[in-house]
Amino acid sequence: MSSARPVGIDDLPIRDELRGKSPYGAPQLDVPVRLNTNENPYPLPEPLVERIAERVREAARTLNRYPDRDAVELRTELARYLTRTGKHPLEAANVWAANGSNEVLQQLLQTFGGPGRTAIGFEPSYSMHSLISRGTGTAWISGPRRDDFTIDVELAEKAIAENRPDVVFITSPNNPTGTAVEPETVLALYEAAQAAKPSMVVLDEAYVEFSHGDSLLPLLEGRPQLVVSRTMSKAFGAAGLRLGYLAADPAVVDAVQLVRLPYHLSAVTQATALAALEHTDTLLGYVDQLKQERDRVVAGLREAGYEVTTSDANFIQFGRFEDSHTVWQQILDRGVLVRDNGVPGWLRVTAGTPAENDAFLDAVRELKKEQRA
Amino acid sequence: MSSARPVGIDDLPIRDELRGKSPYGAPQLDVPVRLNTNENPYPLPEPLVERIAERVREAARTLNRYPDRDAVELRTELARYLTRTGKHPLEAANVWAANGSNEVLQQLLQTFGGPGRTAIGFEPSYSMHSLISRGTGTAWISGPRRDDFTIDVELAEKAIAENRPDVVFITSPNNPTGTAVEPETVLALYEAAQAAKPSMVVLDEAYVEFSHGDSLLPLLEGRPQLVVSRTMSKAFGAAGLRLGYLAADPAVVDAVQLVRLPYHLSAVTQATALAALEHTDTLLGYVDQLKQERDRVVAGLREAGYEVTTSDANFIQFGRFEDSHTVWQQILDRGVLVRDNGVPGWLRVTAGTPAENDAFLDAVRELKKEQRA
Repeated sequence: MSSARPVGIDDLPIRDELRGKSPYGAPQLDVPVRLNTNENPYPLPEPLVERIAERVREAARTLNRYPDRDAVELRTELARYLTRTGKHPLEAANVWAANGSNEVLQQLLQTFGGPGRTAIGFEPSYSMHSLISRGTGTAWISGPRRDDFTIDVELAEKAIAENRPDVVFITSPNNPTGTAVEPETVLALYEAAQAAKPSMVVLDEAYVEFSHGDSLLPLLEGRPQLVVSRTMSKAFGAAGLRLGYLAADPAVVDAVQLVRLPYHLSAVTQATALAALEHTDTLLGYVDQLKQERDRVVAGLREAGYEVTTSDANFIQFGRFEDSHTVWQQILDRGVLVRDNGVPGWLRVTAGTPAENDAFLDAVRELKKEQRA
Repeated sequence: MSSARPVGIDDLPIRDELRGKSPYGAPQLDVPVRLNTNENPYPLPEPLVERIAERVREAARTLNRYPDRDAVELRTELARYLTRTGKHPLEAANVWAANGSNEVLQQLLQTFGGPGRTAIGFEPSYSMHSLISRGTGTAWISGPRRDDFTIDVELAEKAIAENRPDVVFITSPNNPTGTAVEPETVLALYEAAQAAKPSMVVLDEAYVEFSHGDSLLPLLEGRPQLVVSRTMSKAFGAAGLRLGYLAADPAVVDAVQLVRLPYHLSAVTQATALAALEHTDTLLGYVDQLKQERDRVVAGLREAGYEVTTSDANFIQFGRFEDSHTVWQQILDRGVLVRDNGVPGWLRVTAGTPAENDAFLDAVRELKKEQRA
């Protein structure tokens, strides 16, 4: 289509706060070893691939009809999974699902945040928390962390008391720094949030299956303003599926339905997620392998003389560097793509397959040697 | 999960404007003949079902990786479809896709509407336009229609000049009333919108494949602030897939990427949509059958003594009734579910299979006879 004159974004009446912005997303580069987006390196096992084809074929036979708007079967199976692994009984009424945990978080912010309201997170953390807050018109407050990237409870409580946010984000394990949050910390911040406003506390457990400890799902008991968000992207090896979900009091699930787009979750997404949930044990076996590999990479990095933040995730934050972007490029020059999340002095690497991790460790060892030479 | 006390939505700190609201959606009743949500009654043909299973199986083999964030292959094929059927050349850069046209519209409103901005539509029309506007903090203005449900250009221009909206919605064919909008009307309102603000004009063509006339895609030429939104739910018989898309100047496509959630469109959705696009000709054959059935139902309704609004869609607005909700119930009592969209005096019925349409026509003929008896 040709236009009378070439038009750019700035010629359009976009919102002022979008002017000069770029779309969010990691650079997608064609590199032999990609360890930059915390993907699970193991393809789904072939029997699961076949089961997905089978369930989607079945769903395709009624694709002319709208999907189950309430995704009841899927929410039932997700609740069963959480009950089994999370040591806390949950039912479909406690669970809600959407297209990626990003959409779950967006729905929570549309319900409990939005114009005239505020959200706080303790940074550095998952950058989509602030981006989706801003995208829903929720003012963002950047809360503090210690230099070792753990949350200083006293300082965090003070930030909550002073700012009286409507939504409090806690990420455990934290991304991009990797460390899980103690249950006592979550409890203290929940109490602080209730005393200040009361507000909703969103505990983002996207990577919790990789943690040394357990999920904090049991904290939901008696805390109707706590929400735990999860995803099938990492532990279930299904980043391409875009299936995020939350667990909370049934009232929270009722509330987000006031803002969800009707029929937001397609029949093929529901069918694929249900197939994956049938293969939970196999997929959690891969998680165990990845945890071992993660620990091996941590040990390798330390041995080579790098600092590493405690990792409860499928990624590792390592440093320190005077100029982390230069090191990012030097590792890339050796065929390995890691992530520069903009945390000064640090980079993040995803735990890959043994061969990918070897390639990464070779690259960073080589760099150390060159420095010493 | 048990809670210390039962909690309701109103115990939670939800936004004030959500209090007392119910989730959007047609009642899902178990009735033999369901003609209430404008679904395509023809299941996908079996070769297409097989092709979907095949493409999804292939996609599942890399489901551990994030999907193509920019959905380039899908946008290329959608552009090819629009070029072929819309009599206007378009490329991938002109097209954007999301989870249902609802998400497309939400992204447009996040970009061009939002807090402090306004949107106008000419009502009655597709009720999600106002709902998504409000959901994104965009103030909604209800513009006028004539008693015959066509747009009075002079009155509409006046409403635009007075309100200076940021987004103007035009639905063609209009839902729930069924009639297509003349190109002259769209042109006049586009000019009025540019003179007033300038603002974006969103032409919602969800049902255009069922129209007696052509799509208004050629109007995009030289009009960078016009957006045409489309869906695969109706003509492609894929309501369960949730695939909506838009065509516009490439600058509009760049702009919505500032607000889209990253990786919003799953790999299984992209694979399924691509499979369906391979079978376009077969599916458009079904559309031809449905148009004939639609015309037969229109004739049957008129013959039975009902009024009908001109239908360019796969549904028909019929009346008039003193109390349309009572008639809705009387038709339901005869095993046929139609839709009460809240337009006083009118109901809406979807064109179904020949057998479904016969059941509907039998029911409404019976009602007329009883009235006369």
